[in-house]
Amino acid sequence: MTSVPILADPAWLEGGPEGSIVLSSRVRLARNLRGHPFTHRANPDERAHVFETTREAIAAAPSLAGAEIVRVDRTSSLDRQYLVERHLVSPDLAAGSGPRGIAIGDGETTSVMINEEDHLRIQSVRAGLDLTEAWKRADRIDDELDAVLDLAYSKEWGYLTACPTNTGTGLRASVLIHLPALMLTKQISKVLRGISQVGLAVRGMFGEGTEVMGNFFQISNQTTLGTSEPDTLGSLDRVARQILDHEKSATEVLLKNARLQVEDKVFRAYGILGECRVIASQEALSLVSALRFGLSAGLIDRVDLGRLNRLMIETLPAHLQKRAGGKLDQVERDYRRAELVRGVFSS
Amino acid sequence: MTSVPILADPAWLEGGPEGSIVLSSRVRLARNLRGHPFTHRANPDERAHVFETTREAIAAAPSLAGAEIVRVDRTSSLDRQYLVERHLVSPDLAAGSGPRGIAIGDGETTSVMINEEDHLRIQSVRAGLDLTEAWKRADRIDDELDAVLDLAYSKEWGYLTACPTNTGTGLRASVLIHLPALMLTKQISKVLRGISQVGLAVRGMFGEGTEVMGNFFQISNQTTLGTSEPDTLGSLDRVARQILDHEKSATEVLLKNARLQVEDKVFRAYGILGECRVIASQEALSLVSALRFGLSAGLIDRVDLGRLNRLMIETLPAHLQKRAGGKLDQVERDYRRAELVRGVFSS
Repeated sequence: MTSVPILADPAWLEGGPEGSIVLSSRVRLARNLRGHPFTHRANPDERAHVFETTREAIAAAPSLAGAEIVRVDRTSSLDRQYLVERHLVSPDLAAGSGPRGIAIGDGETTSVMINEEDHLRIQSVRAGLDLTEAWKRADRIDDELDAVLDLAYSKEWGYLTACPTNTGTGLRASVLIHLPALMLTKQISKVLRGISQVGLAVRGMFGEGTEVMGNFFQISNQTTLGTSEPDTLGSLDRVARQILDHEKSATEVLLKNARLQVEDKVFRAYGILGECRVIASQEALSLVSALRFGLSAGLIDRVDLGRLNRLMIETLPAHLQKRAGGKLDQVERDYRRAELVRGVFSS
Repeated sequence: MTSVPILADPAWLEGGPEGSIVLSSRVRLARNLRGHPFTHRANPDERAHVFETTREAIAAAPSLAGAEIVRVDRTSSLDRQYLVERHLVSPDLAAGSGPRGIAIGDGETTSVMINEEDHLRIQSVRAGLDLTEAWKRADRIDDELDAVLDLAYSKEWGYLTACPTNTGTGLRASVLIHLPALMLTKQISKVLRGISQVGLAVRGMFGEGTEVMGNFFQISNQTTLGTSEPDTLGSLDRVARQILDHEKSATEVLLKNARLQVEDKVFRAYGILGECRVIASQEALSLVSALRFGLSAGLIDRVDLGRLNRLMIETLPAHLQKRAGGKLDQVERDYRRAELVRGVFSS
């Protein structure tokens, strides 16, 4: 069994451009090794071969110098959940079987999943709204790996992938955006409808099939075929900026029409986080969401954006258990979570 | 128009015997002047005569030396509500018509309502569970007024009163008791049934016809005929001590089985009161109730019992308006109330 160490704070939680509304921008590239069956059709030996080949290429890639490579199939279920909570591995990779892993680059801003649905999933994440830089870094890793590995690419189709929805660019770009004012003013469904109409997908905090929590929405492209990377990124960036403007307008409306009620919500969140003795994960996230909103609306200055962002991860179940050094039942988690948030917010 | 000044903190809110559970002990004596129609049958001239006669007697009573006598019919509706909130006058006296008033003794621990349902209602209140002392003081005032006034008394019936339910001793003794643990453990209805079975009445915080709020119950005798004052007081005191024991046992059970949840409730109340920007009267009372419980259960020591007790009165609508110097609408009251409680609880 390989044990995942407690990792340092991810750099992408520290706040970036438009950071008060956009938590992060992500790019992932799906790639496969030519002449090898896709993961779900590969037997353990073939998977082990892909893992080893990829591992060597990663170890040699300058952009991933010093990356920690973890054999996810050799970790405990707690460690796997820990990696999911940090957005390093997908729930699918965590739940999969056979040799598979994750290479974790500096500050967790770059990483490569090995033997997920595709042999390689190159990932890059930036704080705030910064798709260009996220793309540049993923693209550089792609170039470096491409120089060493023989990637499955067709002149006609582009990059070949296990699922046809990724074929072409293999690019999924996404922004994780915080929309409390659109929720409070009940405009969110109109905005989400608009997003779907321009061919983008809306998901929960941990991607496909996950719930929307704490007013965080993940917005991503759906098309990878017959389009170029710059078009995909440009269109997502444009839509993200529009949503951002909607959120800002909704915030102004709220401050104009219901300032006191909104302030009350924000400061009560602060009071509860500073005093609670037990707190569930969902409630903690929703109170942190209220404080993030208070910060972006200029209603409160006693909190730090980076600290709030980190807390959203630190209060998740596996993070609490890693910090405590072992398994905790729900009652113990709720207790430890309260202890953690009190330490941050109590005066 | 007579304006009621902002009164000093009532002495009976400072905490007394068993003060963490029993807020106060009250005694009132219903008395009428012989040869004068009861208030509801008296015309304005007769009421004015009763008022004047009584006023003179009160002014001469040594136990009421320095008492402030307020003509309630000459006060604003806000002032009348203010007096009701302080438990000085009944809702009935506030809402009545014609010459009527209240004589307010030292620290508001003794008072006399004039021309309520009966011509005189001598009132005495003590902090905590202290019916004996409350009775002694009311009895002394009764003696002093009896020496000057010709009170309606029959050898056969005892004191004659406007409503037959008061005839006899004219005594209503009550304790205002805080039972959060019995509420939380859902044993309260059983306890209340027991109280009714021994012939006592259970009412809300402001007496007959008022709601139970913040887990405060007023328990009082129902019988005034064919019984003596010592019997009435002794029986109420005995029952109050039994309820007190039930509440203490329920507290122990809660601390044993759900300490964390109870602590959470108490400290969240503290956090919310320290940070809220708007708060309704009911919510404020229920959070103060949680803190009173925290104090009596030994869970929190950052709060002072007297301060909590005073806050229950100070956060009421008329008190907020008196403090603000004029009428406030509900939104303004909720705002001022939040400001007031924050001042007390924020660190």
